[in-house]
Amino acid sequence: MSDYSRLALNSATTKKWTLPEVVDGCVRAGIPAIGPWRDIVADHGLAESAQLIRDAGLRVSSLCRGGFLTAADAEGQAAALADNRAAIEEAVALGTTELFLVVGGLAPGEKDVIAARQRVADRLKDLVPFAVEHGVRLVLEPLHPMYAADRALISTLGQSLDLAAPYDPAAVGVAVDTFHVWWDPDLKAQIERAGREQRIASYQICDFNLPIAADALLSRGMMGDGVIDFATIGSWVRDAGYTGDIEVEIFNQQIWDADGHEVLATVKERYAELVLPFA
Amino acid sequence: MSDYSRLALNSATTKKWTLPEVVDGCVRAGIPAIGPWRDIVADHGLAESAQLIRDAGLRVSSLCRGGFLTAADAEGQAAALADNRAAIEEAVALGTTELFLVVGGLAPGEKDVIAARQRVADRLKDLVPFAVEHGVRLVLEPLHPMYAADRALISTLGQSLDLAAPYDPAAVGVAVDTFHVWWDPDLKAQIERAGREQRIASYQICDFNLPIAADALLSRGMMGDGVIDFATIGSWVRDAGYTGDIEVEIFNQQIWDADGHEVLATVKERYAELVLPFA
Repeated sequence: MSDYSRLALNSATTKKWTLPEVVDGCVRAGIPAIGPWRDIVADHGLAESAQLIRDAGLRVSSLCRGGFLTAADAEGQAAALADNRAAIEEAVALGTTELFLVVGGLAPGEKDVIAARQRVADRLKDLVPFAVEHGVRLVLEPLHPMYAADRALISTLGQSLDLAAPYDPAAVGVAVDTFHVWWDPDLKAQIERAGREQRIASYQICDFNLPIAADALLSRGMMGDGVIDFATIGSWVRDAGYTGDIEVEIFNQQIWDADGHEVLATVKERYAELVLPFA
Repeated sequence: MSDYSRLALNSATTKKWTLPEVVDGCVRAGIPAIGPWRDIVADHGLAESAQLIRDAGLRVSSLCRGGFLTAADAEGQAAALADNRAAIEEAVALGTTELFLVVGGLAPGEKDVIAARQRVADRLKDLVPFAVEHGVRLVLEPLHPMYAADRALISTLGQSLDLAAPYDPAAVGVAVDTFHVWWDPDLKAQIERAGREQRIASYQICDFNLPIAADALLSRGMMGDGVIDFATIGSWVRDAGYTGDIEVEIFNQQIWDADGHEVLATVKERYAELVLPFA
């Protein structure tokens, strides 16, 4: 019998499910933790979602997501801060300490990546005190460089750690998401560094499928279907001292079209075979 | 009157043109250099192509391409070495010192990026003496990480420079291709390093278009159509001491479908506006 005690389901994996369906699916499958996206929480109601998850005996591994901090105008910046403060409060209500941030890309028409990255650092500075007050960690997620322009100008774990460096590790952490970082020649060293600096807030898993999907966002695959070496990366994360949840997050049209319960069965199978032995 | 003396056309930009058509197009447009792909040279004949280009008074800025060095079996490795030796001889025949290498991705079924990268280093070691004998520089091209798995496990300029480090700069150089490296948080430092180490063998330009094309290989765009800041990157390349050709290489279905002469007119316009002032 495999040990699923660290397995978490990110709700994006079963995109067509409502929050109650995700909760029910996890309970039936024996998956003890969920990482919900804010939209399905909002659809069900924040207090109701928190109650439902608690009553089902599930943990909340993380909340997805805040971020998009690169607005160049005052109005956009104020809106981003308001949205991120709301996300922090939602994390508290749901009982998770981990709020993912996808930091954002270039502003419309902008080409200055250095200036846009500086705005991420500036907004992070604005947000950290509020997060600390609420006991929520802001989790910087480096995204694959193919999403640099429009989703996250933070593309490597090293860059995330540099951005986190001014803050307490309980205030700003980093995520290791296999899809986004598997290609990085400096990955081993940066995972080691993340461990030393006590910054690893989440280990997210899915595979990198080829060919890249026509909608490049949907190239995430079921573990084992793509090119990622979960044994090696998982061992690095383990050796860095990470003992938290291992969250499965897959954006993939075929998986979205499949029966959710069958998807969870496959998730468990692949987790037990490819991930757990190295966790 | 703009100075086009450093402008080079990579033949992939006008994919439907034969070598004679590319040569004719460049002559008519006043573009003084071409970077042909090996397939159109082979179609026209190697000696004939060399003669044609010479007679037209054009320079050959580079030859695309050798590489694909990651075969895991002896037969595949021997074939790769034979193909790369042929490419070196073709470069000599065409009168260019710069042979691009796209190093290759994972072997079929393989997931070990570290082992595959080691095979790149091993094959490079095999190839360098032959390249040196022929006065040809092997140009390591880091490719965007979205192509890591299937085309090039060398994803950053820093990684290329590390790989080149054991060899004389006249034997192994690196390419700066804006499309592949624009997102790299370490780009400025690595371009400076490439300059110091005298490794910049080519500066290739095109834009990074959004959304990513359904065929991810075809997301390269005309300068000015995407997100890349040619002023900043171009200034870094200039300040690193690079004074060689600036080669336009665009894989883009819409551009391939357009009239080649019109494409060259646009190339010149955008080059004069966006690239030349910082070159």
